[in-house]
Amino acid sequence: MAAEAAIAATAGEVITCNAAVAYEAGAPMIVDKICVAPPKPSEVRLKITHTSLCRTDLTFWRAIGQKKVFPRIFGHEAAGIVESVGKEVTGVKPGDHVVPLFTGECQECRYCRSGKTNLCQKFKVDTDRGVLASDGTSRFSTKDGKPIYHFLGTSTFSEYTVVDQACVAKIDKAAPLDKVCLLSCGITTGLGASINTAKVEKGSTVAIFGLGTIGFAAAQGAKIAGASRIIGIDKFGLTDTVNPKEHDKPIQEVIKEMTDGGVDYAIECVGNVKLIEAAVESVHEGWGKAVVAGLDDNTKFVSVHPGNFLYGRLLTGTFFGDYKGRSQMNDLVEMYMKKELNLDDFITHNLPFHKVNEAFQLLIEGKCLRCVLHMEHDH
Amino acid sequence: MAAEAAIAATAGEVITCNAAVAYEAGAPMIVDKICVAPPKPSEVRLKITHTSLCRTDLTFWRAIGQKKVFPRIFGHEAAGIVESVGKEVTGVKPGDHVVPLFTGECQECRYCRSGKTNLCQKFKVDTDRGVLASDGTSRFSTKDGKPIYHFLGTSTFSEYTVVDQACVAKIDKAAPLDKVCLLSCGITTGLGASINTAKVEKGSTVAIFGLGTIGFAAAQGAKIAGASRIIGIDKFGLTDTVNPKEHDKPIQEVIKEMTDGGVDYAIECVGNVKLIEAAVESVHEGWGKAVVAGLDDNTKFVSVHPGNFLYGRLLTGTFFGDYKGRSQMNDLVEMYMKKELNLDDFITHNLPFHKVNEAFQLLIEGKCLRCVLHMEHDH
Repeated sequence: MAAEAAIAATAGEVITCNAAVAYEAGAPMIVDKICVAPPKPSEVRLKITHTSLCRTDLTFWRAIGQKKVFPRIFGHEAAGIVESVGKEVTGVKPGDHVVPLFTGECQECRYCRSGKTNLCQKFKVDTDRGVLASDGTSRFSTKDGKPIYHFLGTSTFSEYTVVDQACVAKIDKAAPLDKVCLLSCGITTGLGASINTAKVEKGSTVAIFGLGTIGFAAAQGAKIAGASRIIGIDKFGLTDTVNPKEHDKPIQEVIKEMTDGGVDYAIECVGNVKLIEAAVESVHEGWGKAVVAGLDDNTKFVSVHPGNFLYGRLLTGTFFGDYKGRSQMNDLVEMYMKKELNLDDFITHNLPFHKVNEAFQLLIEGKCLRCVLHMEHDH
Repeated sequence: MAAEAAIAATAGEVITCNAAVAYEAGAPMIVDKICVAPPKPSEVRLKITHTSLCRTDLTFWRAIGQKKVFPRIFGHEAAGIVESVGKEVTGVKPGDHVVPLFTGECQECRYCRSGKTNLCQKFKVDTDRGVLASDGTSRFSTKDGKPIYHFLGTSTFSEYTVVDQACVAKIDKAAPLDKVCLLSCGITTGLGASINTAKVEKGSTVAIFGLGTIGFAAAQGAKIAGASRIIGIDKFGLTDTVNPKEHDKPIQEVIKEMTDGGVDYAIECVGNVKLIEAAVESVHEGWGKAVVAGLDDNTKFVSVHPGNFLYGRLLTGTFFGDYKGRSQMNDLVEMYMKKELNLDDFITHNLPFHKVNEAFQLLIEGKCLRCVLHMEHDH
């Protein structure tokens, strides 16, 4: 109760706290005091306790071929506690434990009501937008009053952040925030790519292209769904995987030979167009499904022979694993609590928040799956 | 009974009859007497009564970029009567009314038993194969004993033909053969592309790319499935259609504006890669499905931005409308008999069989939807 009372005391006030501010593309972020304004009527201010890093942060921090939106606070995979809420907010209250959602769920638009997609018309991802949707302004500013831009409506590389109520999922208070923070992006994307999008069936065969966090989560999803054989394809040549460098022929031919004509499902977890093409050609004619679960170089196109589709192959993709964040996040948290879902093994590193640049470097060098940053709140 | 008795008299004998033989690629076919051997154990000999023409016949008669398999008897969209059967045949008997199937259904292979596809492992289309699958030889020969090749295992441009029992569907004897012959290819492909593959829903929006027989059949399928809006896209600028030539912007942009973000389903009925790309981009993010129902130039690839899939669009295709020929053909015949399915309006021309080259010309010039050839059996 002490913690909750302390949080409530700041309600309505501007909070000064530490954040990692990216002042320019690709340059080290600077951890320094910034100001976080109170939430607007539909918004929620969060005290972030843990934030992990994802390649999407890296991509937009580098901003190669992207709109330059700087200074900006990155971060979208996190967990925290509600500090205060705007007057229209009904779903969460101060003290609630939450996970922020980079892909929101307003529960009112025709997308949310369609029953066919987890995309929300108003709160779907807009990487160019550096402001909050409610009024088109930022809640962040430097000590001398200059605005700092948001990222994905979450900006979790800050001890406090403001998000729309559509972009926050209430979770079980018993869940460890330093673990379930992983559920707000990559793990959920991979898990859902297998379970919700591909709809992997008991006894089926699955190929996973790209063994990073999304890929291992997709493999876990395939296992949960009862797949009898899960083939990993990666250059790292891990156990039970196919290393393309060890074969002279295209990887799709190797997979077809291994599986009597192709796998039932292929999940591409990198967003590389050549791998997407291989994934389509790795699935069995008549019923094979290929699912794109990553986005890499935005300038490239997938080139596929139309006969693949005429012969019944299917290509689709997934954003956040087709999970609806507000409605379904706590189900995933409960899966973790019941030990049906492994998150712990994805956490290869833990660092204090002020070492955020070091954590980025681990990701760049491919030395980590997930590094969890622990907020210090030492001011 | 007189007709059936007459048919039975030829059983076990070589039949001499008229057929349209293509001696070389693109040259007029020659209608002349040929010899048709009796069926092998798993085969059925058919007296063809009517055959219609389809663009696939045209494509492989021209044989541009294709393996040259000549002399050959084309034709795969037809209806007829069983003349005699091999000793292993159980599903049909002499006198039965049937429709030949270019995509067979053995009902025994792992494809047929999968419950996931209408493709049959043994009897799926092989356009290079000029022989029957049972023993790898032809049943057709010239009067001086030289073999003539089969096409798609059907070769219906002949008064008599031999097909495997996997490639023949028994139908209601009350059905008019000069109409239901249309069900053995294009109509069924288009109808099923909407009903079975796209799974068009009540109240949904559908775009049809290419208004030939497959396209109009896809439109009819969408209507049967309850679509609220069916948009046709064709250069001919028919009523209620969008003519790309009348718009400066890409057709997918026109469709998105007409439909608040895109149609729920797009059926591409030509096999043109540019139209397939437009179809993918015409469907609504989050749930839109694009279905390929045609194949044109075998050398071209579809080029699509992977973001289309990440945002939940889906691309697949269909062969024979995902209908299983032997199991489901008579259901379609009954739909026609109950006037739930319109076939009559697809028949723009009727000609006697010996005018087969004239019928090809109508197709080449785009002057017909379906031309039905009436076999003459005047020998």
